[in-house]
Amino acid sequence: MKMTLAEIASFLGGTVIGADDTIINNIRSIEEANEGDITFIANKKYLKKLNLTKASAILAPPQTAAEGKNLIIVADPYAALGKLLTLFYPLEHGRSGVSPDAYVEEGAIVSPEATIFPRAFIGKRAKIGKGVVIYPGVFVGNNAFIGDDSILYANVTVYHSCIIGKRVILHSGVVVGADGFGFASPGKDNTKIPQVGFVQIDDDVEIGANTTIDRAALGRTWIQRNVKIDNLVQIAHNVVIGEDSAIAAQVGISGSTKLGKSVMVGGQTGMVGHINIGDNVMIAAASSIHKNIKSGQIVGGSPQLPHKQWLKVLACWVKLPEMRATLDELKKKVEKLQEQKNKLSNKG
Amino acid sequence: MKMTLAEIASFLGGTVIGADDTIINNIRSIEEANEGDITFIANKKYLKKLNLTKASAILAPPQTAAEGKNLIIVADPYAALGKLLTLFYPLEHGRSGVSPDAYVEEGAIVSPEATIFPRAFIGKRAKIGKGVVIYPGVFVGNNAFIGDDSILYANVTVYHSCIIGKRVILHSGVVVGADGFGFASPGKDNTKIPQVGFVQIDDDVEIGANTTIDRAALGRTWIQRNVKIDNLVQIAHNVVIGEDSAIAAQVGISGSTKLGKSVMVGGQTGMVGHINIGDNVMIAAASSIHKNIKSGQIVGGSPQLPHKQWLKVLACWVKLPEMRATLDELKKKVEKLQEQKNKLSNKG
Amino acid sequence: MKMTLAEIASFLGGTVIGADDTIINNIRSIEEANEGDITFIANKKYLKKLNLTKASAILAPPQTAAEGKNLIIVADPYAALGKLLTLFYPLEHGRSGVSPDAYVEEGAIVSPEATIFPRAFIGKRAKIGKGVVIYPGVFVGNNAFIGDDSILYANVTVYHSCIIGKRVILHSGVVVGADGFGFASPGKDNTKIPQVGFVQIDDDVEIGANTTIDRAALGRTWIQRNVKIDNLVQIAHNVVIGEDSAIAAQVGISGSTKLGKSVMVGGQTGMVGHINIGDNVMIAAASSIHKNIKSGQIVGGSPQLPHKQWLKVLACWVKLPEMRATLDELKKKVEKLQEQKNKLSNKG
Repeated sequence: MKMTLAEIASFLGGTVIGADDTIINNIRSIEEANEGDITFIANKKYLKKLNLTKASAILAPPQTAAEGKNLIIVADPYAALGKLLTLFYPLEHGRSGVSPDAYVEEGAIVSPEATIFPRAFIGKRAKIGKGVVIYPGVFVGNNAFIGDDSILYANVTVYHSCIIGKRVILHSGVVVGADGFGFASPGKDNTKIPQVGFVQIDDDVEIGANTTIDRAALGRTWIQRNVKIDNLVQIAHNVVIGEDSAIAAQVGISGSTKLGKSVMVGGQTGMVGHINIGDNVMIAAASSIHKNIKSGQIVGGSPQLPHKQWLKVLACWVKLPEMRATLDELKKKVEKLQEQKNKLSNKG
Repeated sequence: MKMTLAEIASFLGGTVIGADDTIINNIRSIEEANEGDITFIANKKYLKKLNLTKASAILAPPQTAAEGKNLIIVADPYAALGKLLTLFYPLEHGRSGVSPDAYVEEGAIVSPEATIFPRAFIGKRAKIGKGVVIYPGVFVGNNAFIGDDSILYANVTVYHSCIIGKRVILHSGVVVGADGFGFASPGKDNTKIPQVGFVQIDDDVEIGANTTIDRAALGRTWIQRNVKIDNLVQIAHNVVIGEDSAIAAQVGISGSTKLGKSVMVGGQTGMVGHINIGDNVMIAAASSIHKNIKSGQIVGGSPQLPHKQWLKVLACWVKLPEMRATLDELKKKVEKLQEQKNKLSNKG
Repeated sequence: MKMTLAEIASFLGGTVIGADDTIINNIRSIEEANEGDITFIANKKYLKKLNLTKASAILAPPQTAAEGKNLIIVADPYAALGKLLTLFYPLEHGRSGVSPDAYVEEGAIVSPEATIFPRAFIGKRAKIGKGVVIYPGVFVGNNAFIGDDSILYANVTVYHSCIIGKRVILHSGVVVGADGFGFASPGKDNTKIPQVGFVQIDDDVEIGANTTIDRAALGRTWIQRNVKIDNLVQIAHNVVIGEDSAIAAQVGISGSTKLGKSVMVGGQTGMVGHINIGDNVMIAAASSIHKNIKSGQIVGGSPQLPHKQWLKVLACWVKLPEMRATLDELKKKVEKLQEQKNKLSNKG
């Protein structure tokens, strides 16, 4: 694809500074860009790289100045990058229609406008919407529902009766709807509690590779609209994740915990079950969350603390050996003072 | 399904308080239950919800009182719930027999009473017992053994020569028998040590989605009877997990570590290799276990401590900034006292 | 297989102490070995087991003495074990050639010397080298490249355009090339940034079960020669891992972080994005790495500290309740001293 800076600026709603007839034919990172490439500055700390890049143009935030460089000024260069990538690299699956080598069980309702690859399996009474793309090795269980324009990459598993919304992306190895971990007398009888609920995933959700979302014991596990979940995350039965939340890799959320809207959770964080996390909460990576968090809080640590307090604790944690040495020294000094005081008292 | 309270109480071995001809046709959580539903109180802290539920009846522990509510009193309401769910929601796979679209290699021995879905793969000399259910995308390697009535959900992988007992449940994405992580001169030559052992999983084990259990270097990795393992757990080569143990999600157990019977491990805990954990040990979530634990101990923390001591340490950890401030203050005071003492001494 | 000790010593370049005509027909661990077995001592702490083993011979390091035992002295018994296991247990896949039941898309170039199992899927224009083994359920995307003699075990997924080198081993459930976790306005709009880069895995890499390696946003995610990665590891977009590095299970490495050569990372460690880890760095298990590490450093902790300092901090952390008690006690003593001093001053 070839576009001039003027055309790109028009497409992105930005303003060109420099030669607007410059021709762009690819998008590369600021280090790797060469002539003919456009690049971007998403973070002000990379501004210093601006003068070193060989890119023919740069997507940059308002008030960026760079002598001799062609810029397109946009409000959010990272979002603009996304838009431009979508134009330069349209998503292609290289197939359309329902392959005769897919295995579609009797009673499944598959839109003729869906793409089903060979070796996919669609269960009884499952419904597959139009524009859906289902890759090889995908299993869609009986009575499951896949909304329009969703993409299930290779080797995804959706157990029976789970509901996937529109424009949902499930990356390879995702498992939706396996049994929740529920046993009576755990560690003794381990009597299985049948997990008879389901998983509901709303529109515009994206879920990373090998993430697992368990079906509810009763009722539903619910991932709401526009939630984004990274790889290898564990979502237990009956968890609810509020819309627009973003969950980084290897997070684990225990049963029945509810997250509000726009919650952001750093990687490898764990949460106990049956707690409530408010809206707009931010949780640092590798935290251990064991109790409710009110809306708007920023927390971190293990156990959790308000973010600023946590940083103070960590600053002290690092100084523990010094603190201990000071303490030992003080102890001796005080003992000495006491001895001397006693002598004085005796003298007195 | 429709049953009266009298019938349900008889099935569960419980006692009705209230109208025993009440008709029940579903099971729901205490918040979601409506007329015609039965619900349950598994935990005494939910007793306060008893008066608010719209359920027609409640499974409750002995000595529960709730005016105007129909109760079935049972010793363990959660276990009773499990039993009742099994009755109301019998597990159905919607198929039986060996599909001609399954790929069964020559020399495999598959019970005609097993259910093999299309697109499953059964290797040479593998044995599949009666009542086994094998979903699409499952790979059973050469010489592997799957005991009677086990269920392998979609996209499970069992490498060659591994042994799975009876009534075992492997959820989607489970990998049994991949090579253990064994290399000579790690970080330099990384010379692979062939992993020529196997995995043995005994009867009544359940393993959660995307959990991995590596084959032994020599000998076996061994998951004993009735062990329950949650999702995304890593079990390294030559680990042994004693019967009835329960391992929560995202736990990692390093090579050759042995767990006793009825061990309970909280989520995201890690254990080093070559240690022994006794029977009936309980380990808190997110702990780092680096040495042996005697039977019956409760431990937590990173590094591990006896549980009570760990809680005390955490209580202090949170107070570190205050402790540091106090320490600084004391230091100044002591210095001042010393100065004054010196003055006194000089005067003296 | 049957070999004399003399033959084995010759094969390994070792020296027999004892009866060099002893016949060996299997290899077992020191506890499980019996007559006819050879075993090994990889770690000096197991030397005490030497006299108890029933093995007919032992691979042992120089200067090992064991009366009445047959030894083969080799420089590195663990590496020798690996070599001997390769001889006794040659890797067999039980098939050869491209199965007619594999699904090979038009335009794919598959070496006739490759082994493709039934139910594997090879995308358009993908290239599969000679000696490659591709198990059932594997998905190789369009334009992907698999180098000679690599093994992709069951249910591996390689997304389009990813490059896998020679002699690479991908264990079951590995996902190479899923989209990196990149969204503009995260937690609000969550606007997807198309991930248009790829993954490059160099020769002799081995990757454990259910590990995920995301494709780059732009450019490549790069796993260099002879890197070994354990199970359930998360490698984010644009990460680079230098050659010969070894990464234990459940580690998570965030976007654009670069590891040098021969880096060793303990299990469950997390790293933030955009940092640089030097060559020959060692990182303890369960660490949280948030900033650059220079070559040759040994670090641990959460937050990270030089290893020795970290151990000192942990030693104090355990003593926190005592420290706090001491602090409280000192505070009282100092207050008392001040009071007495004040009295003295008043008197004075």
